[in-house]
Amino acid sequence: MTTEDTTSQLPTGNDVANAPEVAKQQVFVSPHGKETAESRLASLPVIGGAEFSTFAAGERYKGRDDVMLARLSRGTSVVGFFTKSSTPAAPVLDCQTKLKLEALTWAELAIIVNAGNANAFTGSFGVMTVSEIEAAAVASLNVLPSRILMASTGVIGEPVNTARIVSAIEHLKAALSSDGLAAAARAIMTTDTFPKAASVEIKTEKGDFRIAGIAKGSGMIAPNMATMLAFVFTDAKVKQPLLQSIASAANRVSFDSITVDGDTSTNDTLIVAATGKANHPEIKSEDSVAEQFANGIESVMMSLAEQVVRDGEGASKFVKVHINHARTESEAQIAAFSVANSPLVKTAIAGEDPNWGRIVMAVGKSGAQIDQFLMSIWLGQHLVARYGVVAASYSESIVAEYMKQTDIDITVDLGVGDASASVMTCDLTHGYVEINADYRS
Amino acid sequence: MTTEDTTSQLPTGNDVANAPEVAKQQVFVSPHGKETAESRLASLPVIGGAEFSTFAAGERYKGRDDVMLARLSRGTSVVGFFTKSSTPAAPVLDCQTKLKLEALTWAELAIIVNAGNANAFTGSFGVMTVSEIEAAAVASLNVLPSRILMASTGVIGEPVNTARIVSAIEHLKAALSSDGLAAAARAIMTTDTFPKAASVEIKTEKGDFRIAGIAKGSGMIAPNMATMLAFVFTDAKVKQPLLQSIASAANRVSFDSITVDGDTSTNDTLIVAATGKANHPEIKSEDSVAEQFANGIESVMMSLAEQVVRDGEGASKFVKVHINHARTESEAQIAAFSVANSPLVKTAIAGEDPNWGRIVMAVGKSGAQIDQFLMSIWLGQHLVARYGVVAASYSESIVAEYMKQTDIDITVDLGVGDASASVMTCDLTHGYVEINADYRS
Repeated sequence: MTTEDTTSQLPTGNDVANAPEVAKQQVFVSPHGKETAESRLASLPVIGGAEFSTFAAGERYKGRDDVMLARLSRGTSVVGFFTKSSTPAAPVLDCQTKLKLEALTWAELAIIVNAGNANAFTGSFGVMTVSEIEAAAVASLNVLPSRILMASTGVIGEPVNTARIVSAIEHLKAALSSDGLAAAARAIMTTDTFPKAASVEIKTEKGDFRIAGIAKGSGMIAPNMATMLAFVFTDAKVKQPLLQSIASAANRVSFDSITVDGDTSTNDTLIVAATGKANHPEIKSEDSVAEQFANGIESVMMSLAEQVVRDGEGASKFVKVHINHARTESEAQIAAFSVANSPLVKTAIAGEDPNWGRIVMAVGKSGAQIDQFLMSIWLGQHLVARYGVVAASYSESIVAEYMKQTDIDITVDLGVGDASASVMTCDLTHGYVEINADYRS
Repeated sequence: MTTEDTTSQLPTGNDVANAPEVAKQQVFVSPHGKETAESRLASLPVIGGAEFSTFAAGERYKGRDDVMLARLSRGTSVVGFFTKSSTPAAPVLDCQTKLKLEALTWAELAIIVNAGNANAFTGSFGVMTVSEIEAAAVASLNVLPSRILMASTGVIGEPVNTARIVSAIEHLKAALSSDGLAAAARAIMTTDTFPKAASVEIKTEKGDFRIAGIAKGSGMIAPNMATMLAFVFTDAKVKQPLLQSIASAANRVSFDSITVDGDTSTNDTLIVAATGKANHPEIKSEDSVAEQFANGIESVMMSLAEQVVRDGEGASKFVKVHINHARTESEAQIAAFSVANSPLVKTAIAGEDPNWGRIVMAVGKSGAQIDQFLMSIWLGQHLVARYGVVAASYSESIVAEYMKQTDIDITVDLGVGDASASVMTCDLTHGYVEINADYRS
């Protein structure tokens, strides 16, 4: 068999099971590694109107900063996206209530984040914790209570030592600085092995603006937003409704399309804030600049989401699952997540085993409407099965070689419609079991 | 704190969050272990009208039997339950078609099972394999084509070497024996570490009968029937419709309530066959004997299901998840499976860590309708959280001691209704990753 046999399948008219299409999404290629993380942190731009600080409150971690504060100038538009868990943490419930209020853009905005304790399933204690921190922040920072947003990450079910965080606020206030975002990326880490940051500077004919984001998360990562905290800041001038629709679209293809273990956190929070301090006219939805801005937001969020998956607990491989020609987008997503969350698929990838039968199994159990005799599967560019049976051209040794790569693409063509979806995930390794068998002790 | 504080919660009137109720289901206490498996095999009774044989066809395994044949006398009632996967294997599709036919109880029945190759996602080759084996069995055994049921288990996507199985049939026919069931339990194993068998002899005032079952399966085990083959034989006199309803009810609480990894096989098959050779009048639904028979069928199937979970790939703990006071039974099941399938819950159990926050997370992500402030959680008899917050009586050291047991009970009271469900599962260990990272090589 020639290489051509396994790598190319020429499109033939109405044939729906063609070779995988190149993804349309703009994705930052961001290889795993501390060095790359450091350079991403180093290149974070200053966002006009935004200041950041961090402090070691000692709620859980010793010898490192574990709380962060962001203060954003008057005029800041802000939108938030939260976990769809039915057991959301106290700070999530608080943010959701506050963001439902009419935007109070004439007031400053503060964001306070703590790592080590999720303040989830903490009942009325959790609500009190939020209130006490809010009251301390009001007194110290002189902001409106409803312009203080909190996010927490860490162990579920343990009451927070509120005093530690309250007493950190004065320190945080004193340390605020326009170049504190890199330190903030470190302060929000829990089991993360590297800090996550992404940024882009966008030059338009009407003026330039910047977008910078940080994130944390490496386990309990699943659709409906993962255990993931992400904060994206921009100095672009954009009102809340347009920011909402742009960030929402970007969230769908980024944080809502990743999974590490299928477990959804109680605390997932994404906040996108635009200070409007850049020197350009307000972005309106009909502007060409709006598209540039939307691309920038999506790029930053895709990069952060990809970094979260690459840092998936114990991950040794980065995997993209593409489902093409599904009946509906929702069925494409269901099938993609079923493959991405399957322990048997994920362990096979960890073992560099082209065990594509498990991909069949995962699509089969997903609930998506399929006909197995229309289904085709590729690993990378290698066709492994076509129309419900192993491809004549399939060579296990060639595909086994492909499985040794760090980045693996799985493409399934269902051949029953026009919808598609992509999901990013990682493999399931001994490292995952190691990290999670005794996270708390 | 006293032991009483953590172990007993007295029922108080309408209080819905009482201590876990003792499960009503009759379950065989069947500790893991080869010795126990041997004694279960040794005590399998002879089922009148049923003969079994095994042979080493060499489709995948060397030096062991890997095909089995069961021949059941004229007058046998038979019912089947199959995977709900949308990519069912060829033998599953074949069985489903045949069992839809009017029961041909005047003819003999043959069941042929092979281990090592699932004959799934094998397209028209798979259909041909089934036809060829069927034709050979018709010629050799002199049975009707529609009374030949096949089941396969093993690797997905590889064409079966049909000739090997075809040429085994004459050997299987020659070796048929009324005490061949124990060998059959071994011949159907794949990654199983011990053969699975269960039996019961039921004495009634109208005469005695026996029920004996075997099963295989240790990974790709999830609701909708797990990768699991199970065959239950009885000499009871019972017609197909009553057998169907009794086996269906038993299946719901046994094989449909277990999960190892949430992955559903393409091949799951449960066949229950009653030869009617025992010396008692036909069991009718209004008989008291019907209840005794139903209890027996359920006991055997519960034991087999429990053995499958105890032999879950890499399992070190056996876990029961009980959801009480859910709004509906379906929501109770959704929540129970969400806990039972959560990689974070399963790794915590492997690490003997009473990390109950992950149980909160898993219930929260399940989609079941809940109010976290009505939710209570027990580990064993130890109340850990009550009405959405850690219990005042909770002692981590006491519960950590409990987590060292081999059998772990998780009980969640949702406090929003009257429905309940229980699911059996195992923990997620290094062993699971070990087994599945390179199953095929």
